[in-house]
Parts: sequence; structure tokens; C-alpha cells
Amino acid sequence: MTQDELIAQIKKKQSFLCVGLDVDLDKMPSHLASSNDLIFEFCQKIIDATAPYTVAYKPNIAFFEAYGLKGWQALEKTIGYLNLNYPNIFTIADAKRGDIGNTATRYAKAFFEQLKFDAITVAPYMGKDSVEPFLAFESHYTILLALTSNEGAYDFQYHTQEGEALYKKILRQAQTWEGAEDRLFFVVGATQAEALADIRQLAPNTFLLVPGVGAQGGSLDAVAANGLNSRCGLLVNSSRGIIYASHGKDFEAAAASEAQKLQEQMKSWLLQKKLI
Amino acid sequence: MTQDELIAQIKKKQSFLCVGLDVDLDKMPSHLASSNDLIFEFCQKIIDATAPYTVAYKPNIAFFEAYGLKGWQALEKTIGYLNLNYPNIFTIADAKRGDIGNTATRYAKAFFEQLKFDAITVAPYMGKDSVEPFLAFESHYTILLALTSNEGAYDFQYHTQEGEALYKKILRQAQTWEGAEDRLFFVVGATQAEALADIRQLAPNTFLLVPGVGAQGGSLDAVAANGLNSRCGLLVNSSRGIIYASHGKDFEAAAASEAQKLQEQMKSWLLQKKLI
Repeated sequence: MTQDELIAQIKKKQSFLCVGLDVDLDKMPSHLASSNDLIFEFCQKIIDATAPYTVAYKPNIAFFEAYGLKGWQALEKTIGYLNLNYPNIFTIADAKRGDIGNTATRYAKAFFEQLKFDAITVAPYMGKDSVEPFLAFESHYTILLALTSNEGAYDFQYHTQEGEALYKKILRQAQTWEGAEDRLFFVVGATQAEALADIRQLAPNTFLLVPGVGAQGGSLDAVAANGLNSRCGLLVNSSRGIIYASHGKDFEAAAASEAQKLQEQMKSWLLQKKLI
Repeated sequence: MTQDELIAQIKKKQSFLCVGLDVDLDKMPSHLASSNDLIFEFCQKIIDATAPYTVAYKPNIAFFEAYGLKGWQALEKTIGYLNLNYPNIFTIADAKRGDIGNTATRYAKAFFEQLKFDAITVAPYMGKDSVEPFLAFESHYTILLALTSNEGAYDFQYHTQEGEALYKKILRQAQTWEGAEDRLFFVVGATQAEALADIRQLAPNTFLLVPGVGAQGGSLDAVAANGLNSRCGLLVNSSRGIIYASHGKDFEAAAASEAQKLQEQMKSWLLQKKLI
């Protein structure tokens, strides 16, 4: 998928919503419990219910891996289902991988070629040669952690040399890496909305994936106010707030309703910024 | 496995060798190519050949994930084979995971409970609340990236605030986290042997996993001279140098021979430091 195609979807659906698939068997609607293929069935129903309001899905790989082979099978089925039925929807493997060159290439192959995700989240700690192997894949996107939404973000991400916090150095340097111009996005947590204005100075044209709206307490309005750029430039993710909006038989309708609420709020912002 | 049991194995085998299982179908001995279960079969033969000289195995998870479901099945079989046949050998999932709390717990369950690894490598970028969920698992070990063996280590790991490089801050802070005293190890690349003396000052009692000997150019002697502590405190990994020592029918003998060479070198160091 090209960035232009992603932007066209954002305009068409009047939404920059990404739905996170953090699939937890302990939180499933109880009436589904008898399914033999519970993880996939839940994902499929959530996708069908929320797709009208959504431009991206982000399966959280840990939640699939935690179920071993069964989880991996469910992940293959879920991404297959998305690619077959919703080819215009952007898919992100939330995997936060990061390793030396030859290993990074293996991860890139696993997620881009085997599973056919459009994008993957990647950790920056090991530097350029751990990220460029992902950036080498055309029409695929590397979403590098910059400033995360959790409390632990303050442990190391603000470590500052000569006035430059680590996350800012990562934002600055990573944009110079091979392939970055076309294929690099960043993760910035919604709980860091105040830093978003600074981040937009450093990365004016880059797409930002913003998790942390909803259960983690981030504000969509603050994110949109500071993060939207001239071509939108945002994918805002909500996971638990949507997919576990209800644990009853109405879980699909409840998920759709939560997704629609966010989409409507996003539409107002897109209108206000004259993006639609 | 307890640390005392690991140390007992080191003394018994006179070795602190870890063999990395970076399983690459392109590098397999050609006479195995007809196997239906090539990845597992290769791992099994390498393990059987090298186990006399080895105290730990480190499957590189990316290399299994790259083959999708087939790779995941091979990983389950490989760790199952190790736990069944070599219960005294320490097992490390080289996964370099790192994510927010509830996701980190999922990864910990995947690798410690589902797959039954003794240890996992974890990335530090997201801070304390991304690492403590791993540290919470008793008798399991979290091996945190500190200073890595690749060129990209110089991009961010030396970012320095008030005289303290990022990797040193990570070494210092992580040791204060809940569970760290008993269950935290660090990754320090063998190519960083000069920094090892400093690292031993900051983490005198901690086990260090040291990759980068062999194909990556690190020197075992330099690592041992600077890294050994009063209870050994080192696991030195070699992957490609051992498992691809030959691509012919003699690949098991060649792997055993390379492992034995390292073991003999390690034995001299253990003797010299009066550890055996």
C-alpha cells in the first residue's frame, strides 16, 4: 500500500482510526467461549463491526504468541482475512522487534512477506543497522518507537545529551537512514500529547502512530491539535476501549459504536484542518 | 533452573558456552534438504553434537518466525527436545521483546510458560514497566540489552547525560527494579570487550550474555579477561561459527569441533581464575 492510498482511505472514511487487536481469551464475550477458533472468530467479528470507521488494524503480536501455535495460526488467519476482505485497510504488526542486521531481515521477511502486513513497529535501541533492513522493503512501513505512552517512557527516552533528549535524537537521526524518506513512521504515545508539537517540528511530514487513547488515558483532541499535518499524518490507535467495550452478546455493536464515536471526533478535526 | 544450578553446570562441563540457533534454510547441509522437518532436524543434530561442550542454547526467534507456522512448530519442537533430553542445559529465547506492561506479561507467558524457556532477551527502551513483568517470573531470567555487538550500538547506546552513557544508566537503574537481584542478566556484545571492565564495576555480580564471538569478530580472550567474576558470570555465545562450520555431511562433527575449541579455551580461563 502506498502512503497516497492510505491518505485516500483516511479522506474517504473521514477517519484516522487504527483498531488494536489485543486478543485476550480472559476478556472474550462468554457466548463465544465454545468456539474452536475463538481468537480468530473474535478478531473477524470485531473487524467486520468496526471496518466502516477504521483505516488500520494493529494486531498486538504478543497476545497471539502467548497462545503458542494456536495463537500463531489465529494471527495468520486474521491477517489473511484482512488482506482478502479489506485490501484497502492498512495493517500493522505491533511487534516492536529490533535486532542486528541479518536477524532484522528475518523479522522483516516474517511480517512483510510471510504474513503480508503493510507495516511493523520496531524498537530503536540497536540503531541504524537494526532498522534499515526493515526500511529496505518497498511499499512496506517501519514504525519506529520514539516516545511511548507508558510510565517507563521517562526512564530512558528523556536521557539528554547537549540539550537533546534521546527520543529527539532518534527522530532526527532515523529520518536520515536509507529508505526513511518514503517508509518510516514513528510511534508517539497519546499520553505525550504536549511533546507532539515539538515532535512535529522534528518530523513535519512523517506519519505518526499514536497509541494510548482510551484505556491508557490519552486525549484524542490533544493529539489531533498537536499532531495533524497537511496530509493528516496521524493514525490514532484504540484497543481495549473498542474491542472490550462490551463482554456481552452486543460486543460487536458496542465496538462499532465506540469506533464510530472516535471516527466522528476525527471527522471534525479533519474538517477543521480542511483535510476533507 | 536456579543460578546455582547453572553455575554447577559451568563447573561440570568446564564451559560457559552458549550455542546460538540461527536457523537459516539457505545454509543447511544439502544432504538434509529432503527432510520434511528440516529446521527441527538440523537443530536436533546440532544440539546432540555440541551438548557435551555447551551449557546453554539460544534459539534466535526471528529465524523461526521467518518461516511462519512451520517455523513456530519447529521452535516448539526444539525447545521441547532440549527440555526433555537436556534438562540441565539453560535455554534462552533470543527474542529482544519490549512492550508496555500487559503486553510484556503476554510475551513472558509465551516464552516462559508456553514454550518453557529459562530466559528471554528483552529490549530496555520502554523502561521499567516494560521489563518488570518479565522479572516477576520466578526461576526465569530476563536478559536485558545493555551494550550490543553491532555497529548501530554507537547510534544511541552512548548517548550521554552528565557523564553517564545510556547503556550505563540502564545497567545501573535496571538492577534496582523488582526481581532484578535474582533474575536479571545483561547482554553485552563481545565486540565491546574494552567496555566490559567498566560494566563489571557497575554490575559485579550479574550474569552477562555475550554474543558476537566468531562471525562478528569478538575475542573470547578479551571477553574472559574483562568479564569473568567470582562465580563465572558469563555466557559467551557463538552461532554461525559453530552451526555452519561445515555445510557438508560432516556438519555435526565440524560443529562439535568448533564448540570443543571454545570450551577448551574457556576451561583455561576457568582454571586461571580458579573457578574450577
